[in-house]
Amino acid sequence: MADYTKMWTDLGLNLDNHDALLENLGGAYQSIFMSQEHRPEGMGYFDFVMSEAHGLRIQELRDEQEAGRKIIGSFCVFVPEELVLAAGCTSVGLCAGADFAQEEVEKVLPRNTCSLIKSFFGFKLGKVCPYMEVSDLIVGENTCDGKKKSFEIFSQMVPNFFQMDLPQNKAPMARKLLKHEYEAFIAKLEEMTGKRIGLEDLKQGIATVNAKRNALARLSKLRTANPSPISGLDALLINQIAFLDNPVRFTGKVNALCDELELLVKENKGAKVENAPRVVISGCPMAIPNWKVPAVIEATGAVIVGEESCIGERGQRNTTDASADTIDGLIDAVVDRYFKIDCAVFTPNQERVEHIKEMAKNTNADGVIHYGLQFCQPYIMESFSVEKTLEKDGVSVLRLETDYSQEDMGQLSTRVEAFVEIIK
Amino acid sequence: MADYTKMWTDLGLNLDNHDALLENLGGAYQSIFMSQEHRPEGMGYFDFVMSEAHGLRIQELRDEQEAGRKIIGSFCVFVPEELVLAAGCTSVGLCAGADFAQEEVEKVLPRNTCSLIKSFFGFKLGKVCPYMEVSDLIVGENTCDGKKKSFEIFSQMVPNFFQMDLPQNKAPMARKLLKHEYEAFIAKLEEMTGKRIGLEDLKQGIATVNAKRNALARLSKLRTANPSPISGLDALLINQIAFLDNPVRFTGKVNALCDELELLVKENKGAKVENAPRVVISGCPMAIPNWKVPAVIEATGAVIVGEESCIGERGQRNTTDASADTIDGLIDAVVDRYFKIDCAVFTPNQERVEHIKEMAKNTNADGVIHYGLQFCQPYIMESFSVEKTLEKDGVSVLRLETDYSQEDMGQLSTRVEAFVEIIK
Ligand code: SF4
Ligand code: SF4
Ligand code: SF4
Ligand code: SF4
Repeated sequence: MADYTKMWTDLGLNLDNHDALLENLGGAYQSIFMSQEHRPEGMGYFDFVMSEAHGLRIQELRDEQEAGRKIIGSFCVFVPEELVLAAGCTSVGLCAGADFAQEEVEKVLPRNTCSLIKSFFGFKLGKVCPYMEVSDLIVGENTCDGKKKSFEIFSQMVPNFFQMDLPQNKAPMARKLLKHEYEAFIAKLEEMTGKRIGLEDLKQGIATVNAKRNALARLSKLRTANPSPISGLDALLINQIAFLDNPVRFTGKVNALCDELELLVKENKGAKVENAPRVVISGCPMAIPNWKVPAVIEATGAVIVGEESCIGERGQRNTTDASADTIDGLIDAVVDRYFKIDCAVFTPNQERVEHIKEMAKNTNADGVIHYGLQFCQPYIMESFSVEKTLEKDGVSVLRLETDYSQEDMGQLSTRVEAFVEIIK
Repeated sequence: MADYTKMWTDLGLNLDNHDALLENLGGAYQSIFMSQEHRPEGMGYFDFVMSEAHGLRIQELRDEQEAGRKIIGSFCVFVPEELVLAAGCTSVGLCAGADFAQEEVEKVLPRNTCSLIKSFFGFKLGKVCPYMEVSDLIVGENTCDGKKKSFEIFSQMVPNFFQMDLPQNKAPMARKLLKHEYEAFIAKLEEMTGKRIGLEDLKQGIATVNAKRNALARLSKLRTANPSPISGLDALLINQIAFLDNPVRFTGKVNALCDELELLVKENKGAKVENAPRVVISGCPMAIPNWKVPAVIEATGAVIVGEESCIGERGQRNTTDASADTIDGLIDAVVDRYFKIDCAVFTPNQERVEHIKEMAKNTNADGVIHYGLQFCQPYIMESFSVEKTLEKDGVSVLRLETDYSQEDMGQLSTRVEAFVEIIK
């Protein structure tokens, strides 16, 4: 591996902290991913991307920056990559999946904050996330109370921050608000780049993101086979990398992998044995390197066949209609596509439970595991009605509430094992 | 005391549970309120209202109902009493201040939910709140995640529910949303009563509420005296009763009390000794019978001279401009008045810390105690910047995080005593 020390220093990373993080991450990756049997060949690319996530990919982003592109970091799938690309910028996802610098974090945030929020604060305070440091603009949003309020503090730690308001329901006024905010975001991007987004730019941005979503949808579809040709861990990893990699290259690699998976399905080859218990995971997003619960689930011999999550179906399903031939028409199409996202911060959010049911059915799942990050009120509150509705429909549900620590691993394993035993 | 058993049964209360609650409440009231020395005569009325809160006042509401008025229950100071009165209806506050039926509550809500939300669920599940049961309509709102999401569950437990969307920032679009929602609320009220709100109705509603707010402002002002002529507990009680009592009668009684307090100030008579340590309390609302922290504070000999809370200044300051002579103009005035409320669910919410500073200054406070209900992310997250900003200004701050249980009483007392020792 090349020596990126100079780049990391230039970015202002704390090298000691960063080494510690990388070592940890590398170890986890080895033991969780590389120990899997029957991995498709095509995973080689994604293993490579992961190994170079803090190296080559950051170098690429810096090269793009030198060539005049701006890097836009964001924390939520409500920040449209279509618009970022249309403005000639590059989008990176900043959701963070590991505890870091917790002591420092608890000086500025309440202890009763979800791990995801604590994590991005820890990455910032510990100076270990090159994506955060390379970003020319960081976008926050008014989603849950935790993010909305903590961005007031976080925004003061970064040089260039943009807060996007989001609606709380799906009424006509709410759609107006969303469009208004997307227009303000476009204005911000245009101000940064110094040029207006043209019709063709927007069409191209939409086409690139649609192609990516179609590739991911193809991957999802292939997992409905029995045996599933790919593990849930590998599929999750691909969905995680979707937020970091170059979108065009990524799309090509996902499609190449899907070509391989199609053959595996024909040959009846799977990541796990045929008739392995099939699980859909639903709930809070799992950012890199948050592989804890999926690893526990698949260690039982079960296979995860879908993620009802923003890093998964909730974030990637539905493409944007590219048929309009005015900029305003295309913006409307973007708004329409995003307005469908069934995040638990909305009320009511009945669409989500319907979607979980549909996923469980389409993937022939034997059960649904609801993943809630401790202190995440939107998802944990909603999990009560998700459980009730699904159980009424005959779908078994296990509700888990956890964080990024390893302390509850034993308890989690026991509960997941018992659940898998019941549904198989 | 009259026998209200029949009324309570008619309302569907669970008499055993209700007896238990009343007994508890009565005991707490005796030991916290009636043991205070130097209480103004005028508190007699409020003691009476409290003793008849589940009796005579409910009888009055039922009489109003028989005469055709509708009772509107709500949980947030964003639901305008002006509009309720203009529609010929009566407004009651439902925020609940005591643990009840916790085991049942935890079957439908996450354990990590703030006490206030758990409390109103407990009151509903335990069938002990006559205000809830007498309400013809209950209004919920999209404020914090906890309320927003739990109302999805709560709304199914009550016959008639209206969910009000609220903005998350103070931008022009947000004001549009608020106006839109107030208009929808008016439409709902009109549908229930079967008649349109006229200009004079609205003027009258605004006048009644303005008079109430002016009386409460007068009370606040009198507390700036040293010694303060009234204890913080008694002043809090009055602010709590403001949500339950008939507004016109209440206003008269507050003004009568203020006349008495003016005399006390002239005679230099106070609830506590002259130069007692002076504290402003700031943070989450304290609904009846949540007197825990104020009781702890005043037990040290300190006096609370202001509540920066929705049950207090945040909810009651600012009157509505009644000068417009069209309905739309008056609605705009109502929107303008409410749009100023500096609740922590807004982002950013810099106005709030400025207001706390101003209150500390105007009341000659020696320190500010920030009251956060455990798991309340908006207020607890905001308390970090409140502390930082005030301390920079030389104002001492103690941040407390607690719930409705009595388990942390010892620890709270110790911390509050130490704080009062420092500031005095
Ligand atoms: S879960 Fe909601 S807030 Fe989080 S990334 Fe998804 S849409 Fe955004
Ligand atoms: S997991 Fe929940 S609390 Fe945490 S950032 Fe996402 S929506 Fe907010
Ligand atoms: S604190 Fe906020 S949500 Fe609660 S009553 Fe006040 S304005 Fe409403
Ligand atoms: S105290 Fe906080 S969490 Fe509880 S209802 Fe009020 S704003 Fe919501």
